[in-house]
Amino acid sequence: MANEDIYTFSEAFPMKGGDGIHSYTLNSNLQGNGVIAAKKLITESIAEKLDIKIFSSLNICRIADLGCSVGPNTFFAVQNIVDAVKFKYKNLGLDSQIPEFHAFFNDHVANDFNTLFTSLPPNREYHAAGVPGSFYSKLFPNSLLHIVNCSFSCHWLSKVPKEVIDKSSSAWNKGRIHYANAPDAVVKAFEAQYQKDMDSFLCLRAQEIVHGGLLVIFSPSRPSGTSHSQSAYNMLVDALSPCLMDLVKKGVVDEKKVDSFNIPVFHFSPEELTQAVDRTGYFSIEEIKELPLTANGTLSLEQLSLHIRAIVELSVKANFGEEILDELFDLYLKKLQELSFNFNSENSINVFAILKRK
Amino acid sequence: MANEDIYTFSEAFPMKGGDGIHSYTLNSNLQGNGVIAAKKLITESIAEKLDIKIFSSLNICRIADLGCSVGPNTFFAVQNIVDAVKFKYKNLGLDSQIPEFHAFFNDHVANDFNTLFTSLPPNREYHAAGVPGSFYSKLFPNSLLHIVNCSFSCHWLSKVPKEVIDKSSSAWNKGRIHYANAPDAVVKAFEAQYQKDMDSFLCLRAQEIVHGGLLVIFSPSRPSGTSHSQSAYNMLVDALSPCLMDLVKKGVVDEKKVDSFNIPVFHFSPEELTQAVDRTGYFSIEEIKELPLTANGTLSLEQLSLHIRAIVELSVKANFGEEILDELFDLYLKKLQELSFNFNSENSINVFAILKRK
Repeated sequence: MANEDIYTFSEAFPMKGGDGIHSYTLNSNLQGNGVIAAKKLITESIAEKLDIKIFSSLNICRIADLGCSVGPNTFFAVQNIVDAVKFKYKNLGLDSQIPEFHAFFNDHVANDFNTLFTSLPPNREYHAAGVPGSFYSKLFPNSLLHIVNCSFSCHWLSKVPKEVIDKSSSAWNKGRIHYANAPDAVVKAFEAQYQKDMDSFLCLRAQEIVHGGLLVIFSPSRPSGTSHSQSAYNMLVDALSPCLMDLVKKGVVDEKKVDSFNIPVFHFSPEELTQAVDRTGYFSIEEIKELPLTANGTLSLEQLSLHIRAIVELSVKANFGEEILDELFDLYLKKLQELSFNFNSENSINVFAILKRK
Repeated sequence: MANEDIYTFSEAFPMKGGDGIHSYTLNSNLQGNGVIAAKKLITESIAEKLDIKIFSSLNICRIADLGCSVGPNTFFAVQNIVDAVKFKYKNLGLDSQIPEFHAFFNDHVANDFNTLFTSLPPNREYHAAGVPGSFYSKLFPNSLLHIVNCSFSCHWLSKVPKEVIDKSSSAWNKGRIHYANAPDAVVKAFEAQYQKDMDSFLCLRAQEIVHGGLLVIFSPSRPSGTSHSQSAYNMLVDALSPCLMDLVKKGVVDEKKVDSFNIPVFHFSPEELTQAVDRTGYFSIEEIKELPLTANGTLSLEQLSLHIRAIVELSVKANFGEEILDELFDLYLKKLQELSFNFNSENSINVFAILKRK
């Protein structure tokens, strides 16, 4: 238990807390669009796939949001599930039997739970609890949870594969902080880490979720048939590499620091998720869909740059120092403009999956 | 639900977070002594009074610590309960059936949960969750909890009775921040608030605790037959009043600010707790004891002064400003020395009670 204690700060990758100009609270609308897009699918799945008998005689519905960060997306996600369960009861003519709701908000111990707690919706219809710890460790007792949500968080790996920052390894990822444009050995190291982590994630959740309970996975994904280097989410992360190398050339950043820093994300494809579910065997896939991104037209490159900054700022700061942040993200915005970066149906999807605990 | 949102900062009275020289983490050994003294009693009570059938077929023991602050006392308290339950199973020859433990750490939303979470014991034997909110609101779904601990927190009222800061009321507590040496009308207002709050506390816990579950109350108390003004805990709090008035005389503090500030604590006697349990009717009293304080000899007046500072600093600061803190607590230490303050068997006890949900 308490495996999160083995995570170093750089591996925990907390989102930026508080509510300042670069905070995750104010710069998470890309995820927010995703949550809204998934709302209808979750409501339908709960209506069709969930047996309300799992709430047992105590009549309590226990929900967890894993990788919740600091809001407001996590509050929308949880309310969405609450609404869907209530809707189901109403449709069954069981208005008077709607259960009590207990919502568990989970993220790394380094997450800003103080901000999360002070921004809890005042008129919420659930009892709230915060659960600190990596979702690659067991977080709850056996058979506690009925509906678990994991939005925009399962693509974070438990750690950077050690060989990619090992100078003596053939998978050393020199001069890059991501695998998108890296040699094959680097990609393989990230794939292996993803497989290990996703298997571990599914096995742990299988213990915590009651039989018949649902696990919703909603993640930035790589479309089937799209290469790692052409996947939009990968391009977004990888675009930081040349910016950091520009700062190396200017003498602002030590090259060794770039060589020893990778961002532990893996944008898995729907197939790779299906394979992990089949491999572990605890869940059935009730639904798996590729959802197009609706972010274009609503997010400018400036906003996108702020969004990525909110996600990586704390870890970039811890590795490279605070003083490079503004210059780095100025370069980063220029890089996105230079690439004429845009999301389109070939390069970007989110994967939405509803799994049911067998 | 979420009644804590109606609490203002001054009513929430968070302990001082972080781990600095004036933090609660480093200045809570008075409570710590209490937890150690209660350990044996809790172990005995769990051995004798608890029916392990309440853990049900899921074999999970759910523990809550209400008013947990930021540790380390809360971790001792929870581990103590875990040890006592394990001890009971071992004594029954049921080692292999020891349940999983789920521990809920509760305090006001303004509590420093980030510090609490980062200081969770690395090798803990329980799954941890934080629960933000006043324990004068419903915090958990019905029938969730098996063992609830409330150490050194139930003496905090939900709010200052409004009449004691109302200039037009006969219970206006002019020039004082506590009822210990106040006119009868002020004492009556605090007594009424205590009764209302303790009744509410017991009714809420009756909903959250399973039948047969235990509620442990361990609080700084007023010994039977000791007047409010002679009770050591009251003397400790009330000694701040003349110090603040000294600062008024020096022109450092505005007198109106003293008149509008009271500390919402009530050091109830064992009889007053018994009456509340009888009045509400949901719990049986399995044990109620007056425990002598063991703090003397282990705590100097300097330490005691730091201890009181850790408890009240944030609220004093919010009301009077940060700039008075050092001067105020210098005066406060002198006042304790002038009073030759000491704990003795006539003026100070802690009350320890084990209640069982009927």
